[in-house]
Amino acid sequence: MKPFNRRKFLKVSGLGVLPSIIPFSGYAESSHTIDTSLPKIKFYGDGEMFEPTEYINELQKANANATIVKDRYGVGGVVEALEKKFVELTGKERAIFMPSGTMANQFAIAELSGEKSKVFVQDMSHVFRDEADAAQSIFQKRLMPLAMGKTYFTTEELKASIDSLKEKEAFKTGIGAVSIENPVRRTDGRFVPFEELKKISAYCKSEGIKMHLDGARIHIASSWTGVSVKEYSSLFDTVYISLYKYFGAAAGAMLCGPTEVIDKMSHLIKIHGGSMYGNWANAAMALHRMEGFEERLNSTITRTNEVIAGVNKIKGIKISPLEGGTNIHALDLAKEIDGMKMLKILNQEYNMVMARPDENNRILITFNETLLYQPADFVIDAFKKSLS
Amino acid sequence: MKPFNRRKFLKVSGLGVLPSIIPFSGYAESSHTIDTSLPKIKFYGDGEMFEPTEYINELQKANANATIVKDRYGVGGVVEALEKKFVELTGKERAIFMPSGTMANQFAIAELSGEKSKVFVQDMSHVFRDEADAAQSIFQKRLMPLAMGKTYFTTEELKASIDSLKEKEAFKTGIGAVSIENPVRRTDGRFVPFEELKKISAYCKSEGIKMHLDGARIHIASSWTGVSVKEYSSLFDTVYISLYKYFGAAAGAMLCGPTEVIDKMSHLIKIHGGSMYGNWANAAMALHRMEGFEERLNSTITRTNEVIAGVNKIKGIKISPLEGGTNIHALDLAKEIDGMKMLKILNQEYNMVMARPDENNRILITFNETLLYQPADFVIDAFKKSLS
Amino acid sequence: MKPFNRRKFLKVSGLGVLPSIIPFSGYAESSHTIDTSLPKIKFYGDGEMFEPTEYINELQKANANATIVKDRYGVGGVVEALEKKFVELTGKERAIFMPSGTMANQFAIAELSGEKSKVFVQDMSHVFRDEADAAQSIFQKRLMPLAMGKTYFTTEELKASIDSLKEKEAFKTGIGAVSIENPVRRTDGRFVPFEELKKISAYCKSEGIKMHLDGARIHIASSWTGVSVKEYSSLFDTVYISLYKYFGAAAGAMLCGPTEVIDKMSHLIKIHGGSMYGNWANAAMALHRMEGFEERLNSTITRTNEVIAGVNKIKGIKISPLEGGTNIHALDLAKEIDGMKMLKILNQEYNMVMARPDENNRILITFNETLLYQPADFVIDAFKKSLS
Amino acid sequence: MKPFNRRKFLKVSGLGVLPSIIPFSGYAESSHTIDTSLPKIKFYGDGEMFEPTEYINELQKANANATIVKDRYGVGGVVEALEKKFVELTGKERAIFMPSGTMANQFAIAELSGEKSKVFVQDMSHVFRDEADAAQSIFQKRLMPLAMGKTYFTTEELKASIDSLKEKEAFKTGIGAVSIENPVRRTDGRFVPFEELKKISAYCKSEGIKMHLDGARIHIASSWTGVSVKEYSSLFDTVYISLYKYFGAAAGAMLCGPTEVIDKMSHLIKIHGGSMYGNWANAAMALHRMEGFEERLNSTITRTNEVIAGVNKIKGIKISPLEGGTNIHALDLAKEIDGMKMLKILNQEYNMVMARPDENNRILITFNETLLYQPADFVIDAFKKSLS
Repeated sequence: MKPFNRRKFLKVSGLGVLPSIIPFSGYAESSHTIDTSLPKIKFYGDGEMFEPTEYINELQKANANATIVKDRYGVGGVVEALEKKFVELTGKERAIFMPSGTMANQFAIAELSGEKSKVFVQDMSHVFRDEADAAQSIFQKRLMPLAMGKTYFTTEELKASIDSLKEKEAFKTGIGAVSIENPVRRTDGRFVPFEELKKISAYCKSEGIKMHLDGARIHIASSWTGVSVKEYSSLFDTVYISLYKYFGAAAGAMLCGPTEVIDKMSHLIKIHGGSMYGNWANAAMALHRMEGFEERLNSTITRTNEVIAGVNKIKGIKISPLEGGTNIHALDLAKEIDGMKMLKILNQEYNMVMARPDENNRILITFNETLLYQPADFVIDAFKKSLS
Repeated sequence: MKPFNRRKFLKVSGLGVLPSIIPFSGYAESSHTIDTSLPKIKFYGDGEMFEPTEYINELQKANANATIVKDRYGVGGVVEALEKKFVELTGKERAIFMPSGTMANQFAIAELSGEKSKVFVQDMSHVFRDEADAAQSIFQKRLMPLAMGKTYFTTEELKASIDSLKEKEAFKTGIGAVSIENPVRRTDGRFVPFEELKKISAYCKSEGIKMHLDGARIHIASSWTGVSVKEYSSLFDTVYISLYKYFGAAAGAMLCGPTEVIDKMSHLIKIHGGSMYGNWANAAMALHRMEGFEERLNSTITRTNEVIAGVNKIKGIKISPLEGGTNIHALDLAKEIDGMKMLKILNQEYNMVMARPDENNRILITFNETLLYQPADFVIDAFKKSLS
Repeated sequence: MKPFNRRKFLKVSGLGVLPSIIPFSGYAESSHTIDTSLPKIKFYGDGEMFEPTEYINELQKANANATIVKDRYGVGGVVEALEKKFVELTGKERAIFMPSGTMANQFAIAELSGEKSKVFVQDMSHVFRDEADAAQSIFQKRLMPLAMGKTYFTTEELKASIDSLKEKEAFKTGIGAVSIENPVRRTDGRFVPFEELKKISAYCKSEGIKMHLDGARIHIASSWTGVSVKEYSSLFDTVYISLYKYFGAAAGAMLCGPTEVIDKMSHLIKIHGGSMYGNWANAAMALHRMEGFEERLNSTITRTNEVIAGVNKIKGIKISPLEGGTNIHALDLAKEIDGMKMLKILNQEYNMVMARPDENNRILITFNETLLYQPADFVIDAFKKSLS
Repeated sequence: MKPFNRRKFLKVSGLGVLPSIIPFSGYAESSHTIDTSLPKIKFYGDGEMFEPTEYINELQKANANATIVKDRYGVGGVVEALEKKFVELTGKERAIFMPSGTMANQFAIAELSGEKSKVFVQDMSHVFRDEADAAQSIFQKRLMPLAMGKTYFTTEELKASIDSLKEKEAFKTGIGAVSIENPVRRTDGRFVPFEELKKISAYCKSEGIKMHLDGARIHIASSWTGVSVKEYSSLFDTVYISLYKYFGAAAGAMLCGPTEVIDKMSHLIKIHGGSMYGNWANAAMALHRMEGFEERLNSTITRTNEVIAGVNKIKGIKISPLEGGTNIHALDLAKEIDGMKMLKILNQEYNMVMARPDENNRILITFNETLLYQPADFVIDAFKKSLS
């Protein structure tokens, strides 16, 4: 299959630069020159995002394990089962399936903030930068960015901003909610420290301000920091988790929270046109892939460390974690190394793919459960060969 | 599989009576008492709506026929291929995939009417009765119902209503659009006469009023009236057609229209939260099932007529078309016949399912392509046996 | 001064027919041919609507009686005093000044109905016909008209409509509020029977539905039916009363209701751009003219009856009350009488003005407190002379 | 009359600190201890804001000069005359009267930006800080603040911000408009340099971005910089000018711009509830006070300079213009001077009022046309006496 044609996509869609939705632009040969008997290791993305053939096979496995019962308009069947699973996972009262993360984020923020117009967000968050001004255009909210260009704001920064509004604003419109993305995709997957989240949460509770977690990839933060998804969730009123970033679904989102908030969602989904007849395929896939996912992710971390230890012994290459980062690491090549040649060999001979090096010969390399497809030695050996 | 648990659904969803989304409440035994070696003939609904196992198998067939190329956020791959197919089908400049028919209807109406607030609709239409007041709540439109309790309004009725506004209204807000559903689900699938549509279209053009066709099931109208989908489409600015009513997809809608209207849709989809990462499964299924669909539907009509001719020779039973109707017919049983017993035999011995008789021993029976699974004689024979 | 140039107004404003805002199109000579030493009796409108010179003089009188203290953005001073006056008048907890009746009606309805979208109104009401679809365009409400072409709907009609929604609607959006105009301008000032209002109010309370009274001219209903403004108000959650229909202000409205509703209004006024710096002139005028207004209106009824008794003794002319009407009456002229000549004499020699006769030689004649400017005999005599 | 009771106002209104609407908190004795035979010189505010008695008298003068013809719903009469006056003043095609500046700003921005969501503003502007998030809550706009804490942004800063959006934003929503306040109330009346405005305007034209001028007090900028109102207006698509800051009206705003924009306003005013029956009083007052206003303001500058020259010769006091400022100056008192005593004497013996000194013994003193009520020597002498 041809890799995603970025140029054409941009042209067709009339959209501009799409960093948030094009996570990858690496070296990838046409499949017939690749040894496809090998499983593909993706050093980009947060997990498996199946091609159609694989997806159908995987769905068949899911159906073989437990006969899939279909939903109707998101009600009943495997969708209901998945919602129960997320209730357990997050410790929230209820969970509801939605077509997209943008919908989950926006509806949660709108409902939590009610008649109050201001919602604090990170400057680098998806809500602020990648949701096409939906908050203002449709949900009557004013987003208040903090932590310009950074991963997170501190409690003090939040408090200072709110105090300044209290003091200087002539017409109070109320602080509706605080929305925090964790980990943050636009800062290369860096996480918000749990201690800071606890302080922010305590402050917000004392001020009567509701909190939303954009936890699209919260499992990544969880595995890399050791804080459970439930612990993270406990600090927030509502939590959104993606079904397609690492749970294999083609699309879909789950919003979890208190009954009185989640009960409002069916109506919002309906009037915004998000009420789809059958949603069981994505729900069944996510339910299927969630089994053992946390264990696989923890094994991935172990394997990652083994791989790094081995690779860093090779001359001219060094992989180092990002400060405050999770599964994205910096792979630095010595100046004299031809990075594109390395990529070509890794791709053709080992079916491994990663992003291209930048002008400093640095590659942002991401570890996810596809790393488990091969032993550490195989991967280390591949790097060795590709550099020799 | 258990039939859809209507009571529980209503309870879970907090919704009330759902005629539009529960097309069927008939007799259906648990599968182990049914001869499931026989294919299931559904005398309800407008076409195949696959159970998960069948759906996965069918998707595998589709992928075997032509390798499915996935989309990204509705762009490219099989979604693009499906959009091209709908451009051919409707003769419109462009087509765009959307998660739901409500989204397609509402976005079309909103975009066509622009700053003008009034949109004329049939009183019995989906837009007026089954979209949860989305037009008013989200899209700033005032729906103007005509044809109270009926299938369609005439050009004269539309003109009279518009003239009355022109004369009596103090503050003009403009006539934005006319939206027509065809065929109309809430009037048991009755169609709007093509001649009337032509007159309405001519009048609207002369007044500068845009027109939208809610053609969720336009192929049903088309096959039963002999007017092609393209001919219907030519009278409207925009046309919505469902992907799941009879094209086998689990969900999805297609909106077709002029470039300047369809080009606005990506942005609307995004800000309303309808932008899903992968949509290829529904698109691939629809594309696969559209092959030969019109022929199958025409064969269904032939088969239907054969079945009716045969069944009507049986004593105590009579099937007759509805006046102005399409694939839904009235099946009348003599008073002395036990309709539920008939349903039980048809279900258990012939794997045929239909709605329950009402207090007049009438059943609304729907013909769709599942009728083609058996020869006419088999069906006629089944009725005979079930009544003896 | 020239009378209002209707044609030019329509042209300038780009609006169409404006029945609601052009209460009068009668015979009016240029002032120099009129005996302006006589006070002007206006047989149209509901009270004094001063010309600038009179208005300034009247404001000076008000200021002489009690020094006017100005408000700031509707807060404090004479605006606060007027709000207190309306609290007493209606028996509601709070009252707030607003620039227009449309604002008062729409804000009340929006706030009372909250997240629910449906609001029942009379088909002939100002909210439904004369507020430019503001409810749908700005306030996300769906107006549900009842009593087509009539003054009011009954409790049974309301209940039947609500029951039908409960039964037939797939997606419930909730019954937000019932808004009732009383008296109804578009049905020539006819009133809604108090007994019916009591029943509707009891039904709505039992269903948890909030009620708004568009009582722009509630004093007219009150004086003609004998039901006090407070009694009317007691049946509704919120009540709007105009400041300019008969209280002499150039503009302005008062909305009265419970604290939790009225407290939301400042914010709504601000964000919709209705927060004006100084509002004291209209408030002071209304406060001034409210003194003794009910007594003057009651005297007007007595005088009206005397005038009618006298006029009806004149041959070829008959004034009769409308069925269910208030201050608007039918003045019927015999076919042979030249109505325009009568109007000319009344205007030039007696400074009395009324609307033109229609094709049946009928004039809709309105009685208001300007009738008190002359004794009954003077008025009767004027009619006599104008017809001889 | 009592000075405005700030504390009570805040309590009553439920609002917080109101810097934008409380221009003044100075020393003001109850009137009976003041020599009220002297006209009041207000060293705060931008012009006369009449008390009711003065307002009525002034309106009477206006009516004596030219008989006031009333408007109906803002159409015709003196409102039309005022609109013509503003067309001349600004050189725009049309002008329309509105109840408030917030309405004028918001409607202009909404209309100019159309479907595009982003509107650039100064961080310190009224639109950004003092309109209660109306842009986001009601008009579906995202305000983009520039020039944090400063009077204006440069063309380069605007361009850099727009270029950054073009580069980094995944989903483009379009740059709708740029709104500039001039002079800026929150930066003590400082003006935006005309040369910078010209550059911004040229850049915006080249990019197809519309521009709005919040010129509430544009005459202040105009007189102090020597750039005419028409010259300022020529750089913008729409211009708002207040009627009550210095034109004596109790309230009201004028929006000027191209026909296609202004023609949309009647409808917007109506649906937002801003359509008032009679607006003639404010229009007549503004029309009356505009006569000779520019000359009076220029005389005020001359008088200001004379006063400053004289006052600065007094020991311990120094008045200096703000950098980039207009009519607001810094009055610095030597540490040993008792500022409140000075204020008391100026108030009681000379009927002059100004703001209280801050902790550095600095008073922000504003010059407006009330300075013309006394010769420069009288004012200088008053300062001398108050400090001896």
